[in-house]
Amino acid sequence: MEPVKVGLLGLGTVGGGTVTVLSRNADEIARRAGRGIRITHAAAKTYDPDKIAGLDGIEVCDDAFAVVDNPEVEIIIELIGGYNPALELVMKAIENGKHVVTANKALIAMHGNEIFAAAQEKGVTVAFEAAVAGGIPIIKAMREGLTANHIEWLAGIINGTGNFILTEMRDKGRDFAEVLAEAQALGYAEANPTFDVEGIDAAHKLTILGSLAFGIPLQFDKTYTEGITRITRQDVAYAEHLGYRIKHLGLARKTAAGIEMRVHPTLIPRKRLIANVDGVMNAVLVKGDAVGPTLYYGAGAGAEPTASAVVADLVDVARALTTDPENRVPHLAFQPAHLSDLRVVDIEEVTTAYYLRVHAEDKPGVMAKVAGILGDAGISIEAIQQKEPEEGETHVPLVMITHPVVEGNMNQAIEKIEALDTINGSVVRIRLEELGG
Amino acid sequence: MEPVKVGLLGLGTVGGGTVTVLSRNADEIARRAGRGIRITHAAAKTYDPDKIAGLDGIEVCDDAFAVVDNPEVEIIIELIGGYNPALELVMKAIENGKHVVTANKALIAMHGNEIFAAAQEKGVTVAFEAAVAGGIPIIKAMREGLTANHIEWLAGIINGTGNFILTEMRDKGRDFAEVLAEAQALGYAEANPTFDVEGIDAAHKLTILGSLAFGIPLQFDKTYTEGITRITRQDVAYAEHLGYRIKHLGLARKTAAGIEMRVHPTLIPRKRLIANVDGVMNAVLVKGDAVGPTLYYGAGAGAEPTASAVVADLVDVARALTTDPENRVPHLAFQPAHLSDLRVVDIEEVTTAYYLRVHAEDKPGVMAKVAGILGDAGISIEAIQQKEPEEGETHVPLVMITHPVVEGNMNQAIEKIEALDTINGSVVRIRLEELGG
Repeated sequence: MEPVKVGLLGLGTVGGGTVTVLSRNADEIARRAGRGIRITHAAAKTYDPDKIAGLDGIEVCDDAFAVVDNPEVEIIIELIGGYNPALELVMKAIENGKHVVTANKALIAMHGNEIFAAAQEKGVTVAFEAAVAGGIPIIKAMREGLTANHIEWLAGIINGTGNFILTEMRDKGRDFAEVLAEAQALGYAEANPTFDVEGIDAAHKLTILGSLAFGIPLQFDKTYTEGITRITRQDVAYAEHLGYRIKHLGLARKTAAGIEMRVHPTLIPRKRLIANVDGVMNAVLVKGDAVGPTLYYGAGAGAEPTASAVVADLVDVARALTTDPENRVPHLAFQPAHLSDLRVVDIEEVTTAYYLRVHAEDKPGVMAKVAGILGDAGISIEAIQQKEPEEGETHVPLVMITHPVVEGNMNQAIEKIEALDTINGSVVRIRLEELGG
Repeated sequence: MEPVKVGLLGLGTVGGGTVTVLSRNADEIARRAGRGIRITHAAAKTYDPDKIAGLDGIEVCDDAFAVVDNPEVEIIIELIGGYNPALELVMKAIENGKHVVTANKALIAMHGNEIFAAAQEKGVTVAFEAAVAGGIPIIKAMREGLTANHIEWLAGIINGTGNFILTEMRDKGRDFAEVLAEAQALGYAEANPTFDVEGIDAAHKLTILGSLAFGIPLQFDKTYTEGITRITRQDVAYAEHLGYRIKHLGLARKTAAGIEMRVHPTLIPRKRLIANVDGVMNAVLVKGDAVGPTLYYGAGAGAEPTASAVVADLVDVARALTTDPENRVPHLAFQPAHLSDLRVVDIEEVTTAYYLRVHAEDKPGVMAKVAGILGDAGISIEAIQQKEPEEGETHVPLVMITHPVVEGNMNQAIEKIEALDTINGSVVRIRLEELGG
C-alpha cells in the first residue's frame, strides 16, 4: 500500500521532534500501521535544518496555506500553536477534506466545538492526543479504554512546569520566585510563565479532559483557574508535616449539582501514588464506577514525548481511513448528538476540605476564637497546629485542616476570621482532596 | 442503528460483572459507541441468577456451542477460562465469522498465534484487553498509544495476589506462608495458589505484553518464570534498609542478543513510582525511545474492573465493524506479515544486578573470602552489610548488592560461595533492576 502523505505545519520543538521520530522509527511504525506514514510537505517561517534529523525528502516552504491546499496531502499536522492562524488553517484543512492532527490545547479548548462540528460535517477526524499530557495516551484511555464506565471524577497533574516548581519547593525548602527563575534558566518555564504558573495551560487541558469524561461541550470559560504563585515554602512544609503534598491539580467531578471543573493548588495525602509524581512529569488519575481508580503517568511535554502522541494519532487516522465516519471514535468520546447539557457549577458551590493558615497574635484565646468562627459556620476542624513564628515575627502561624464544606460558607467564615484584630493579613486557603476510591 | 447482539460464554465473576456493567451503564455506553451493545444470549453450566444484576432479557442456556452457532449473535465474549473447551469455542466462533472478546490470558499466551491466524483468515477480530492487568487499558496503550515508539523495555506488576502478599510481608513484617493464608481467606488467592505465587499467571500476561512490545510471536515456553515462594520477611526488610522494595515483576527487554522475557522477584529502588504500587493493584511501566517512561496503574482483577476491559473491547469491535479488516489494529500490535523472529534469550544470558544473602560464620575473613570470589568473577560489589544474627543462630546474614553481571557468571560465583565451609546453606539471590530512564 502507498504511504499516507502528510503535511506538517510548524517546525519548532514538537514539529522537529515529529519529523525525527517518524523518520527514525519509520520501519517499526509502518510494521504497526500496515503502511508507511510520510511527511511530504512542511511549512515554517523559520527553522534550523541542522537541528532537525529526518528532514530529507520533505519539501519545506513558508506558506502554511499552500500545504493545507495541496491536493497530495491527506493529513495535516498543526504544530504552530496559538489561535491565529492555527484556527483558520485547521478549518481550511477540514474544508479541503483532510484529517487533522494537532497538539494545540488552547485551540481545542477554545474552538474545539466549532472545529469538531466542521469535521463531523465533512466526515474527517481531528485528533488531539498531544494536546493533553504530552506523550501519555490519556485521550485514548478516556475515549476508548474506559468506555464501559460512568466516570465519577478525574484529577491530573497536567502542567510540568508547575509540578517542577512545587517539587523543588518541597525538596529544597525554596521559595516560589527562586525556583521559577531556575525553571526558566533550565528551559522548563517560558520567559513569560503566566500560562503555566497561573494555571491557564492546565485549564485548557482540564477543559478537554472534562468534556471527554462527562460528554459535555468544551467550556473553557467556566473552568475555575487558580495558579501556584501564592504558595509559600512554609505551606509546602506544613502540608508535608500533616501528611499531605501540595500539587497543582486539574479536577473534574460529576455531582448532583452538575460538573465541577477546577484548576488549583491542592493538598493530597502523601501516600497516594499521584502525590509521588514529581518534577516535570505528568499524571492523570481517573475514577470510573466499574474499573475504580486508574492512573496514567509520563512526560507531559518535550519534543519527542509530544511527537509520540502526534505520531500515534497519525497511525490511528491512517488505520481509520477506510472506516465509515459514523463508526469512528467520536471527537469528544460521546457521539455529537448525545452530548449532555449538564451545567458546570460555580466554584462557590464546590464542596472540599481545606488547609487554612492565619497569622495570629501569640496570646491565649486566639485559637479558640478562630475555631469558634469555623464552628459557627458548621465547619469541622480535623487538625489545628500552632507553628513556631518566623524569625522576627510577632505573630505565629496557625495551621488548620477542615472537613469538607461548601466554598461559599468557607468564604464567609474566612471574611470573619480576617476581621479579627488578633489576626494579621489574609487567610491562606488551599483546597484539600483525599482522592480516595 | 440496531444494537450489536452479543453472546456471552460464562457467568462467573467476570461474566456476571460484564452483564451488570453493560446493563447499568447501557445509556452512557451507547452514547459513546453510537449504538447499543446488548447481550442477547448467554451460556453457563451453573450460575446464581440472584447474584447478577442485569440478566433480564438475556436468554441463558447451558450449551456454549449453541450460542457460538447462533446466527443472530455478532460478537462472542469468552469468559469460561482455561483451555478446554475455551479454545474450541473461540475457534468455532471465528469459523462462524464472529468477533471474539476474551479475558483468557492462558488461552492467548498458549494458543494466541493459531487463534489470531484463524481470525486474520476470516477477517474477524479477537480482542483481549481483559487478559492483561484487568481494567488497565494497557493493551490499547501498547498497540495504539505508543505506536510511534521503539519499545526498549517494560516492567509490570501484573499479578495482584503476589503484590498483595509482598506488600503485607513488608508492611507487617510477616512470613510468606502466613500472608498467603490470609490472602486465601480474603479471597485474593485461590485455594490452589500455584498459578499466582509461582508466577505462571504473570508469565502468561508477560508473554502477551512482550509480543505487543517487540512484534514477536507469542512464546510462553520461552518466558523464564520464578515465583515468590522463597522470599523471606528478612529479605524484604534488608532490601528496604538498602533503599529497595521487592516486587514480583514481569520484565521484557530488547537487547543486542535478543529479547529478554522473565518473571521473577526483583529489587527496585523505593523512589520509583512503580515501587509504590501496593496491595492487589497492578501497574505496567513501559519505556519507549520517544515518549520515555510511561506508567499505567489500576485494578488488575475483580468482577467490574475486568468487565470494564471486556466492555471497552466490545465498543472497539462494534466501532470497527465497518472497517476494512486490513486497516484494523493488528492483534499483536504489528501486522502479521511483519512479526519478527528475534529470539528470546535464555535466562543465563541476561545481565542484571543482584541482591545476595548468605549465612556466614561470624569470624574474621569470611566477608573477604566471599567478596574475593565475586571479584575474581569480575563482579563488582556496590554494598555489603553484615546483619544481626536471628535469635539462636550462630551464623550471621551477609547481604550484598552487586553491579550488573551476566547471570551465567553469577551462577558460577554462587556455586563457589556455597562450597565455602564458612557458609551455611544456599545463597539467596534476587535480581535487581534500576528501572531508570
